Amino acid sequence: MSDPVTIVTFDWVPDMPRGFVRDLRVRWLLEEIGRPYTVETVPLRGKVADHFRQQPFGQVPFVRVGGLTLFESGAILLHLAKGTPLLPEGDAGAQTLQWVIAALNSVEPWVTNWMIARLFRNDPVLIEAAMPTMTLRLTQLQDVLADREWLVPQGFTVADLLMADVLRIPDRDDQLAPYPGLAAYKARALARPAFAKAYADQMAHWQKAGP
Amino acid sequence: MSDPVTIVTFDWVPDMPRGFVRDLRVRWLLEEIGRPYTVETVPLRGKVADHFRQQPFGQVPFVRVGGLTLFESGAILLHLAKGTPLLPEGDAGAQTLQWVIAALNSVEPWVTNWMIARLFRNDPVLIEAAMPTMTLRLTQLQDVLADREWLVPQGFTVADLLMADVLRIPDRDDQLAPYPGLAAYKARALARPAFAKAYADQMAHWQKAGP
Repeated sequence: MSDPVTIVTFDWVPDMPRGFVRDLRVRWLLEEIGRPYTVETVPLRGKVADHFRQQPFGQVPFVRVGGLTLFESGAILLHLAKGTPLLPEGDAGAQTLQWVIAALNSVEPWVTNWMIARLFRNDPVLIEAAMPTMTLRLTQLQDVLADREWLVPQGFTVADLLMADVLRIPDRDDQLAPYPGLAAYKARALARPAFAKAYADQMAHWQKAGP
Repeated sequence: MSDPVTIVTFDWVPDMPRGFVRDLRVRWLLEEIGRPYTVETVPLRGKVADHFRQQPFGQVPFVRVGGLTLFESGAILLHLAKGTPLLPEGDAGAQTLQWVIAALNSVEPWVTNWMIARLFRNDPVLIEAAMPTMTLRLTQLQDVLADREWLVPQGFTVADLLMADVLRIPDRDDQLAPYPGLAAYKARALARPAFAKAYADQMAHWQKAGP
């Protein structure tokens, strides 16, 4: 018997981040591996000390698995995927780890810079500063995917789940349009029933939270 | 017998990044665990297709371990630390993973934004845009370290090695001065003989490469 998993997310968020809060990644993984979970919340407006005690940056998600509390969605994914086909053993596992870290450290930060500049601040100077590195990384990633369906030859892994979710960010503002290879890769990943279920469940959570 | 490890780094870099190229992290880990390695190079000026084939973003380091080629310094550290005291088993291992990802995804990107704005571009608008998030993350990280010597209660792990190396970046321009707790943590980590050896070896590599 696996320990029960509790995902902790916010009690409410504004419209813009709905469907993008990172508990989505964890929900998606748990749907992929068929592991049930429950959801608890912390307040977004008026963050409490107990939240920072469990997630020192005041972010979500964090999870409780048995007696362990764990934050950082990337670490949660790697921890929960262990021993499942989404994180293979051996060299394929090392390559999965490599692409998880690439998503978190070589792609997401540049995509996030663009997102903050464009969607949060809408500041032309910051957008122009953020574009070249995002463009470079997306071009390089598309080159990698030119000859393969998923990042690791063995098939869909937790690295694809994470990378596809990262690619949803620029896709919001049509920034994937110049990269048909990346758009197709993202669409392949999002076509998985586990994504649809996770997305619907996160949106239902915000629906219940109210406008 | 462990497979031999080859670190691939650049053949030359300008003065500014010397001592900061990320092969340092891998050298440091290998010194900590007493595992020998050899060094090979790829050209920085005139990057070659064979480099991108092994590291699709054209960066360094990447490593060869037996038949496996692996990039992303964070993934290399986690892969090589497996089975050593620097990456414990069980819950302490999950927490180590959590702090490795925190260093890579919640601290380094904001520190890097500041570094690019300040050290590469010296652009006041970009510096001002980068400061608030870096300041917030450094403050939160210092709060975490207020009651502990290392990030994970069990002792020094690969997460401290990585986080301390990330903190060296803002320290270049005295940006750690307002955070005595972080400065002390960084100093504790850098006092380790393995860091000194790794740093000296990287600097000797650039020395040999010429000005």
